Amino acid sequence: MENNLFVYNTLSREKELFEPFHPPHVGMYVCGPTVYGDAHLGHARPAIAFDLIFRYLKHKGYKVRYVRNITDVGHLENDADEGEDKIAKKARLEQLEPMEVVQHYTNRYHRDMDLLNVLPPSIEPRASGHIIEQIAIIEHILQNGFAYIVNGSVYFDVEKYNRKYPYGILSGRKIEELLSTTRELDKQDEKRNSIDFALWKKADPEHIMRWQSPWSEGFPGWHLECTAMGKKYLGEPFDIHGGGLDLMFPHHECEIAQSKAVNGTSPVRYWLHNNMITIEGQKMGKSLGNFITLEELFSGQHPKLEKAYSPMNIRFFILQAHYRSPLDFSNAALQAAEKGLKKLLEAGNTLQKIPSGNNSTSDIKALITNLYQAMDDDFNSPIAISHLFEAVRIINSVNDGKESLTKEDLGLLKTTYNEFVYNILGLKSETESGQDNNLVEGLMELIIEIRKESRIKKEWATSDLIRDKLSALRIQLKDGKEGTTWNTD
Amino acid sequence: MENNLFVYNTLSREKELFEPFHPPHVGMYVCGPTVYGDAHLGHARPAIAFDLIFRYLKHKGYKVRYVRNITDVGHLENDADEGEDKIAKKARLEQLEPMEVVQHYTNRYHRDMDLLNVLPPSIEPRASGHIIEQIAIIEHILQNGFAYIVNGSVYFDVEKYNRKYPYGILSGRKIEELLSTTRELDKQDEKRNSIDFALWKKADPEHIMRWQSPWSEGFPGWHLECTAMGKKYLGEPFDIHGGGLDLMFPHHECEIAQSKAVNGTSPVRYWLHNNMITIEGQKMGKSLGNFITLEELFSGQHPKLEKAYSPMNIRFFILQAHYRSPLDFSNAALQAAEKGLKKLLEAGNTLQKIPSGNNSTSDIKALITNLYQAMDDDFNSPIAISHLFEAVRIINSVNDGKESLTKEDLGLLKTTYNEFVYNILGLKSETESGQDNNLVEGLMELIIEIRKESRIKKEWATSDLIRDKLSALRIQLKDGKEGTTWNTD
Repeated sequence: MENNLFVYNTLSREKELFEPFHPPHVGMYVCGPTVYGDAHLGHARPAIAFDLIFRYLKHKGYKVRYVRNITDVGHLENDADEGEDKIAKKARLEQLEPMEVVQHYTNRYHRDMDLLNVLPPSIEPRASGHIIEQIAIIEHILQNGFAYIVNGSVYFDVEKYNRKYPYGILSGRKIEELLSTTRELDKQDEKRNSIDFALWKKADPEHIMRWQSPWSEGFPGWHLECTAMGKKYLGEPFDIHGGGLDLMFPHHECEIAQSKAVNGTSPVRYWLHNNMITIEGQKMGKSLGNFITLEELFSGQHPKLEKAYSPMNIRFFILQAHYRSPLDFSNAALQAAEKGLKKLLEAGNTLQKIPSGNNSTSDIKALITNLYQAMDDDFNSPIAISHLFEAVRIINSVNDGKESLTKEDLGLLKTTYNEFVYNILGLKSETESGQDNNLVEGLMELIIEIRKESRIKKEWATSDLIRDKLSALRIQLKDGKEGTTWNTD
Repeated sequence: MENNLFVYNTLSREKELFEPFHPPHVGMYVCGPTVYGDAHLGHARPAIAFDLIFRYLKHKGYKVRYVRNITDVGHLENDADEGEDKIAKKARLEQLEPMEVVQHYTNRYHRDMDLLNVLPPSIEPRASGHIIEQIAIIEHILQNGFAYIVNGSVYFDVEKYNRKYPYGILSGRKIEELLSTTRELDKQDEKRNSIDFALWKKADPEHIMRWQSPWSEGFPGWHLECTAMGKKYLGEPFDIHGGGLDLMFPHHECEIAQSKAVNGTSPVRYWLHNNMITIEGQKMGKSLGNFITLEELFSGQHPKLEKAYSPMNIRFFILQAHYRSPLDFSNAALQAAEKGLKKLLEAGNTLQKIPSGNNSTSDIKALITNLYQAMDDDFNSPIAISHLFEAVRIINSVNDGKESLTKEDLGLLKTTYNEFVYNILGLKSETESGQDNNLVEGLMELIIEIRKESRIKKEWATSDLIRDKLSALRIQLKDGKEGTTWNTD
């Protein structure tokens, strides 16, 4: 296999020929979700971007070990190592054991990823399951003099590190600028310097998630888990580290610093970052409160949504932008994607039944070359999709008798079209049950509205009828502040 | 709620009134799979048995924290603490990282459990994620003098323990008999006594799964993980510990010894054990090579299978035996279960449409009492199912016009039948689109009835709302002599 694959490396700001350390093996680590809430559009994008890359690398013949973690501890409310652990906070609110929250949202994340046809990673390690490995790294960093202990917590000494290794090589930030732009330290702050970051935090007495360590009962800093789990499952250095652009700084920058502080080695050859999804131009995220969960998208239950959008609709919408380009959410864009997807899948069905002819009126081999060139150019799915639409045009013309393809070309087209649409882009036909779900959603909306009216008018016979019938259909209604929701058991 | 629930406690060999430590909370720990191969019938049984118990406890109003672990380390080839780690062996054969094997089979286990309609546990901890907690327990046991260190490994001293606490209280075995029946130690054996068991094993140089500990780089003994994770997520003591009868000795016996050796406390109030599935009278298990995987059952691809058996068929087959009774596999038994399940689900559909009468010819309240009495008697699902078949007879008789039920009794029967069949036994109709169609049919019936009522009462706002919303969903209603029908365009 000739190697023509170029990937954009954030570290060099260039497209580089992809050369893994131990071909045909490829090690890829991608930052996974912090499981304290439902997955939203902003989670779908990295999952789908790196699913595309995982699928294409496998298609090229690489044996990919793909590690995507579950962050179940240590991610604080803000990234300045303060505030409350996100998972512990949710746990207290719901009176649950933190791991119960973790399990609940991990299960839901898996369900959403399955619906989006995102392949499971080869290994899905949990941060809380790798405390020993994280402690060992901290011990190494302390031994090498790049960290200091204050009151049972351990902090990474960025300034000292920067004297030996340049800090900021991934993000392009300079330590002098960082120092001048970050806020002054409070008197209470344990850090020597505002740009230092926590490797280990001593737990407050009320903190539930805690482990014994040489420094205190506490918990690891957020940046450490990826360093520990990447190294454990992929070795050091490994080939690809992926994640959202919002993680480049400080998270990935700190990962590099942690690894180099242990043994002077840069942990990763290729750093790949997907761009963000914006919603009407604004960043979408849990902390901004403007996010739309995947479940809301699939059901259409959100004020910003004109209708329900199926998982494949969302997947195609995301694939229609290059992973490094920003992508703005709108109903119009999703509906355009829905139409495009329908065309692509319909042509896939047509392709199976069109007859071959004596000559070819289109250059199928050139089309195939174009498809591979697009994907080899840093996984450029929108360009690949535009070539697939050219294939759709050819397929429909042959079907209409306006063009023809030889048996050989038709065979090639079938193989390539199927491979690109179903395996590499990971699209699939959504069955009637998907439509039924929309229908059920619509009928339930109507019933909930009638119930509301009948209660206002005190027509108890109607609301009783609804209650009994829904109960027989095993549907539960739940009245909340934001209206009535329903679920089946 | 009156508490009439009795559970058979292996510890006392008696049915005891179920009294949780902190009602309405119940803590339940069940030994989960060792993920080094596909799940087979022998995995389905404990999963379904404790799913039934989980569902019934929740139905009774308990808030159940259900912990079921994933054993991903430390389970050796045989139970005498020798041989190779089961997962590491598989990994070497397939040239995979052990955690890749773990992830692969964990994903497949989850898929099979979903198909069997086994609810996910509240927390699903992995043994490898709790090494710190296991090390802490070993340190405690050593401090208390119930373990000894040999060449970097740590063993539990059963004889010394037995001088303070009786060993064998769960299985009823006596230490004298165990000593006389277990094999003599080799000269190379590190144990002082053949009945001692490993708490920590020093890893051989080729062993991949290893962690740093105060004694050696190694891995924990198998019995330890459940002690650590049960204590961590459910506290000590907790209410219910479940598992297969094959785990009672030595696994659960050792769990009790480990907990008592730490603080003198018995870790669990109620020990529940499901009996085994035999195949033509023989124990089924990975090591015996006569197992049928769930995937093979679902697809019919196994020499012993006459046909494919659906997940619900398997579930119902298992529920038709009491969880403490042995259950023998045969094609005839599975096919009988298939017929029974069909009857039960069909009667469930019939029940939704039968009319009420002026009197009741059957005693529905007595039937309901019988259902609860069966389940309250140590979760006796076969007896409960026999009462459901009595309900099937009544439903079909009413449908045939041979019996009648008052509106109140019909309502009671509907609620109870649905609750027992779908929620407690966890059965469901398997034609997925069929189910959705049933749901759409049911919702449309309700909407048509509301429309009829609103027209009679001249509430035009409601009937207009229905017309507009259905029109938006592209549903047409047609009023005819025999009532209103509907279709989509």
